[in-house]
Amino acid sequence: MAARQPLTVEVTRGDMVESRHRAAAVVMDGAGKTPHSWGDVGRLVYPRSAIKPLQTLALIETGAAEHFRLSDAEIALASASHNGTPAHTVAVASWLARVGLSERDLECGAHPPMDEEAARALVRAGCAPGPLHNNCSGKHAGFLTTARHMGEPTAGYVKAGHPVQERLKEILGQMGGADLARAPTGIDGCGIPVYGMPLSAMARALARMADPAGLGEKRRAAARRIVAAMTAHPDLVAGPGRFDTLAMQAAPGAFAVKGGAEGVYAAILPSLGLGVALKIDDGAKRAAEVAMAAILNSLGVLSDKQALELLEAPVLNAAGSKVGVVRMEAGWNA
Amino acid sequence: MAARQPLTVEVTRGDMVESRHRAAAVVMDGAGKTPHSWGDVGRLVYPRSAIKPLQTLALIETGAAEHFRLSDAEIALASASHNGTPAHTVAVASWLARVGLSERDLECGAHPPMDEEAARALVRAGCAPGPLHNNCSGKHAGFLTTARHMGEPTAGYVKAGHPVQERLKEILGQMGGADLARAPTGIDGCGIPVYGMPLSAMARALARMADPAGLGEKRRAAARRIVAAMTAHPDLVAGPGRFDTLAMQAAPGAFAVKGGAEGVYAAILPSLGLGVALKIDDGAKRAAEVAMAAILNSLGVLSDKQALELLEAPVLNAAGSKVGVVRMEAGWNA
Repeated sequence: MAARQPLTVEVTRGDMVESRHRAAAVVMDGAGKTPHSWGDVGRLVYPRSAIKPLQTLALIETGAAEHFRLSDAEIALASASHNGTPAHTVAVASWLARVGLSERDLECGAHPPMDEEAARALVRAGCAPGPLHNNCSGKHAGFLTTARHMGEPTAGYVKAGHPVQERLKEILGQMGGADLARAPTGIDGCGIPVYGMPLSAMARALARMADPAGLGEKRRAAARRIVAAMTAHPDLVAGPGRFDTLAMQAAPGAFAVKGGAEGVYAAILPSLGLGVALKIDDGAKRAAEVAMAAILNSLGVLSDKQALELLEAPVLNAAGSKVGVVRMEAGWNA
Repeated sequence: MAARQPLTVEVTRGDMVESRHRAAAVVMDGAGKTPHSWGDVGRLVYPRSAIKPLQTLALIETGAAEHFRLSDAEIALASASHNGTPAHTVAVASWLARVGLSERDLECGAHPPMDEEAARALVRAGCAPGPLHNNCSGKHAGFLTTARHMGEPTAGYVKAGHPVQERLKEILGQMGGADLARAPTGIDGCGIPVYGMPLSAMARALARMADPAGLGEKRRAAARRIVAAMTAHPDLVAGPGRFDTLAMQAAPGAFAVKGGAEGVYAAILPSLGLGVALKIDDGAKRAAEVAMAAILNSLGVLSDKQALELLEAPVLNAAGSKVGVVRMEAGWNA
């Protein structure tokens, strides 16, 4: 199928469009068919945090999740870019303790909680943010848990060549049908390797999560558990006010959706057996969210009413007045 | 001159370009000639905070600045998007007091100080941010000072139709050579009206600030004072770590540079009699800064050595390691 025009997301202010974002996106089924695509879907992208659900496969497939009796909440946290509220950090700390580890073993680096009130509470308490507050701390707890279970060193688990990272690379290549051996590589925000892969391969991997019938028994079960855990705990996958949480809460069980840095987004639609991958050319989160809402809406899994401010996100001024919107260009899906 | 290709700013991570920003930009002289342009410079843009130096003209031309004996530091603050540190807020508060007004008269709304340490200090002190912390509080102090001097009501000075805003609109139209009577309008982040104008008209207005010889005597003197005040006080125009401050400190007196929201940027080069206006299509600040640094560098007012991290801004991960850069696409100025 020929690639269609890229998507355009508009940012309006008053009478005119002030800024424009362009995106490529692809909807794929488990057989690799592409019912919808926009822009150049063969372009290489770093899938960043959008493919955390795929990274969680290793935690389950190795038997680590079963051995340490991980709850669905913990599976959701492993697949999360969480807000760093106490609900998130306490859960990750308690999980690490059960594995015989602690915050000191996390190699993800620190940043202030994404949740503004949680960030302010830390400042008021006179505390610097720690690795537990890093939005990736649940994913890293998963990496450490896998390393423990496999009897691998925990120190250096973020480095290329460590068995934890090699497993992730292999799984991603298999699921996406992409050879990552010679893929361009970089370092993610949390210190682990990232691999450049075609946007269509990212969609293929997500489609296989949505329709895992063609996968081996272990991976099939793991994929189903991850999607179920994410849709059961949207609050843990992101947090209050965040797109992923709001979208999954709006349409319970209909899909798992996961954003990543630099405008990549992933969705897994089990009921339709579809995966969705998108990338905003310029990396803007505001555009990625609106584009994902629009695609989910067009696929019928997020109604107009459910989507509301997700489809047309308000632009506010300092006084809190709505002075514009972020929205898809008219006729985008014509 | 035919419009050239748009500019492209690349964001790399490891081996590949992860995101791309596109921009239109124009360099113009006082006679309206365009030695350089990229992309569609006839497009309408909201010039946002990038034209604060032009808005300051009214403060001087009305005689308000002289009447209230405003210092060059205050002229710089009127033209600033400041960081909200005590150095900025105390200066604005003291200025307002001298005019017989206070923070309560500011109608710009509140946001946390742009300076992270100042923002944390406020949280530690248990204080909510106020209008003084708004990056536009100096500009609004200028508006209020003008209204006081002219005997106009101070309440409602942000609204379309108030004499303060009508003067700004007239000056901007005159300087840009644009009829703003039917221009698309919107509301800026600080509550005042904004007018859609061609990017080339924005550049024209900046070129006239750089080469004010063709202006009337009062405006010429006002333009020169504003540019001198900004270049003398780069710390007040933005603040520690901010692009405008760093660039002006790197090349003292060579130019005034001023960013605005949604990726607009302005520069005034008195020694060359040139104005520069640019707009990143998607509104990204990181791209606008690098593109402006590259243009200033290519015009010879910011050397490679002075520019350094401004020309190639580092992308850091949570642990603080450099994992990529923001830079112009190779051959952009060939």
